[in-house]
Amino acid sequence: MKLPGLADPHVHLREPGSEDKEDFYTGTCAALAGGYTALLDMPNNPQPTSSLEALEYKKQLAAAKIVCDVGFNFGATPINAPLYPQVEPQVAALKVYLGETHGPLVFGGLEGMLSVFQGWNSPRPIMIHAEGPIVAATIGLAALYDRRIHICHLSKRDELVLVRAAKERGLKVTCEVAPHHLFLTSEDAAPDHLGPYGHMSPALQSGADLDALWQGLADGAVDMIATDHAPHTRAEKEGPKPPFGVPGLETAFPLLYRAVKQGRAGVTLDRLVDLMALVPRRVFGLPLGDSEIEIDDSEFVISSENLLTKCGWTPFEGQLGRGRVRRVWLRGQLVFEDGRVLAPPGSGRVLF
Amino acid sequence: MKLPGLADPHVHLREPGSEDKEDFYTGTCAALAGGYTALLDMPNNPQPTSSLEALEYKKQLAAAKIVCDVGFNFGATPINAPLYPQVEPQVAALKVYLGETHGPLVFGGLEGMLSVFQGWNSPRPIMIHAEGPIVAATIGLAALYDRRIHICHLSKRDELVLVRAAKERGLKVTCEVAPHHLFLTSEDAAPDHLGPYGHMSPALQSGADLDALWQGLADGAVDMIATDHAPHTRAEKEGPKPPFGVPGLETAFPLLYRAVKQGRAGVTLDRLVDLMALVPRRVFGLPLGDSEIEIDDSEFVISSENLLTKCGWTPFEGQLGRGRVRRVWLRGQLVFEDGRVLAPPGSGRVLF
Repeated sequence: MKLPGLADPHVHLREPGSEDKEDFYTGTCAALAGGYTALLDMPNNPQPTSSLEALEYKKQLAAAKIVCDVGFNFGATPINAPLYPQVEPQVAALKVYLGETHGPLVFGGLEGMLSVFQGWNSPRPIMIHAEGPIVAATIGLAALYDRRIHICHLSKRDELVLVRAAKERGLKVTCEVAPHHLFLTSEDAAPDHLGPYGHMSPALQSGADLDALWQGLADGAVDMIATDHAPHTRAEKEGPKPPFGVPGLETAFPLLYRAVKQGRAGVTLDRLVDLMALVPRRVFGLPLGDSEIEIDDSEFVISSENLLTKCGWTPFEGQLGRGRVRRVWLRGQLVFEDGRVLAPPGSGRVLF
Repeated sequence: MKLPGLADPHVHLREPGSEDKEDFYTGTCAALAGGYTALLDMPNNPQPTSSLEALEYKKQLAAAKIVCDVGFNFGATPINAPLYPQVEPQVAALKVYLGETHGPLVFGGLEGMLSVFQGWNSPRPIMIHAEGPIVAATIGLAALYDRRIHICHLSKRDELVLVRAAKERGLKVTCEVAPHHLFLTSEDAAPDHLGPYGHMSPALQSGADLDALWQGLADGAVDMIATDHAPHTRAEKEGPKPPFGVPGLETAFPLLYRAVKQGRAGVTLDRLVDLMALVPRRVFGLPLGDSEIEIDDSEFVISSENLLTKCGWTPFEGQLGRGRVRRVWLRGQLVFEDGRVLAPPGSGRVLF
C-alpha cells in the first residue's frame, strides 16, 4: 500500500551541540525509515536557535547532511521579539517554552508572553509548550491578539477540553499529540518498567487521559500526530539526572497504523493520513515534495535493534507494530528501501 | 459636598473565625467612617464560605451586627460546583483563588478551573484572585465559556494590558484596583519603612506599575476601586510569619479624593464617584439604598489613631488625605456623624 510521505512538525535533531544523541544525517535517516519526508526541527539546542545567526548556522549544517526535507522553528525568548520581522519568512513557526519545562528557552512571566503574542503577527503558528492552566493562558492571548497557536504534545483530557472549546469559538487553535501519550501511561514509567526511559515532558499521563486523546484523534479535536522525537543516549537516560524525552520517528507510524487496523477508537486510515501527513503540511505550509511511502501490511515486534536514530533505543520495545515502511520516494527519487537510506547526505531540502 | 454612598466589593470582615482582627460590627463601623454604605465580604475565613451552611451562618451573624449593607461572595473549591445553582441567587459573586496565593480556598489545577467556568452560568461575576499568566488563563476561560469575570486587586501594568485587550474584544471583563497599589510601591515595603505592614498579596509593585494603574483609573480600563480591606492584629503583623493584607476602608476615599483634587493622572471627581460608588454597584447589583455621604473638603494627616477598624493601624500613616467623611445617610437615616456611628448593630441589610 502506498501513502503520502509523513510530516512531523516537532522533532529534536540535536545538531548543533548534542551530536552524541543525534545529528542531521542520522535523524533524517530515522525519519525516512519511519516514513517521514518532512520535519520541523526545534530550537532548544544548547545554543538555542533564538538568533538570526544561530538559525543561519543551523540551516548551513542541515543543508549538507539531511536526507529528507527539514524546516526550522524559531525559539522565542522574553526579549527577542524585535527579530520576528526578519525571522518570520525563514521559519515554519515560532516556538515558545512556557512555564515548568526545561532548557535555555523557558520563560513564564506575563511580560515575555505578551511580547510574543503582541509581536508575532503572522499566519505562521506560535507553537506552545505549556501544560494545564498555561494552555488556557495561551488560548486567552490568542483570542486577545488574534493569533494562530498550536499546542504541542497535548497530553491531558482537560487540555483537550480547552482546545475543543476554542475551536467551537472559532479561535485559530490547533494541537498535536505524541505517540508516547497514546500508547504509554504513567504506569509504564514505573521504575521496574521504563524507569528513566519513560521520563518525559509532558509526563506520561493516566489511562483516562490516553482515552480522551484517542477520542480526539477520531473526532478531529486533535489535529495531528507529532513524535516530539527527542533522542538521548542510554548513558544519559541511566545517569543520575535523566533528561526528558524519547525518540519516536521510527515507531510512530507502525504503532498508529496497527491501532487503526484494529479499529481503535474508530480512527480510520483516511484520518490517520490526515493526522500524520496532510494536516501537518497544511498547518505549517510544508510542501508534499511529490513524496510517497510504501508499506508492508504485516505485524512485527518493535525492537531497539536496527534503528537508524543514533540513540539506538525505543520506549516501545516489545510492542507490536504493523505496516513497516519498505520504500520512500521524495521528489520522485527512491530515497529509502528495506532499511537502507539511498539518498546522499544533503539531498533533502531546507524548507523556508 | 455630598456624594453617593461608596461601595466596596472586596473586604474581609473576618467573622466568623478571626474576630480578634475584625468583626461584622467593627468592620461595618469602619466602612461608614470611610463613606461606604455597601460591602461585599470575602469567603476565605478559617472555615471558608464554600458551603450553603457556612453562607447561611455568616448571613445570620452579619444580620445581627452590621451597620451598613453587606453582601457575600461565595468561595469556589475544585469540587463545589454542584452547589452553584442553589448558591447563585444568594450571593453577589463567586470568588476563585487561583495559583500562588494563600488560605484554605486556593487551587491552581486546570480541572478545578474548568469546573468553575463550566459551572458558573450566571450574569453575576466570577471574581478572580490571580496574577500574571493566570490572569490570561482566566480571560481565556471567560472567552471560551462566555462568562463574566472580575479581576480582583489588579496590580501590574501587564495585567492591565490584558484587561484592556479583553475589553476591546468585547469580553465581559472588569477589574478593580486597591488603594495600596495606587499609593505604595515595593520600596515602601522595605524593612525600615512598612516592613511586615507592607506585606500583601498581590505584593506592592513598581512605580511603573503604579503609574499604569493611575492611567487606567483615568481612561476607564480600571473599572473600580476596592480596598481589599484585610485587617490583621499588630501582633500577627510583627510576628514571625506576617499574614498578607492591610486595612483600607477608612483611608481609601481621603487618599483618592486628595489625589483627584491635585489632578493626578487627570482623574476627575465624576470618575472617582464612578470608581468608588456607581460602577461597583452596577457590576455587582448592589442597591444604592438611598445612601449619601457628606465630606469636609480640608486636608488632614492620616493616622492610626481614632480608626474604627478593630486592628487599629493603617499602612498610610503619615500620608495626607483630604475629604474626611462627616456624615453618612443610609435609607434616609443619619447613620454616622463626626466619628460616631449612630446606627444600631443589625440596622444594615444583608444583600441577596
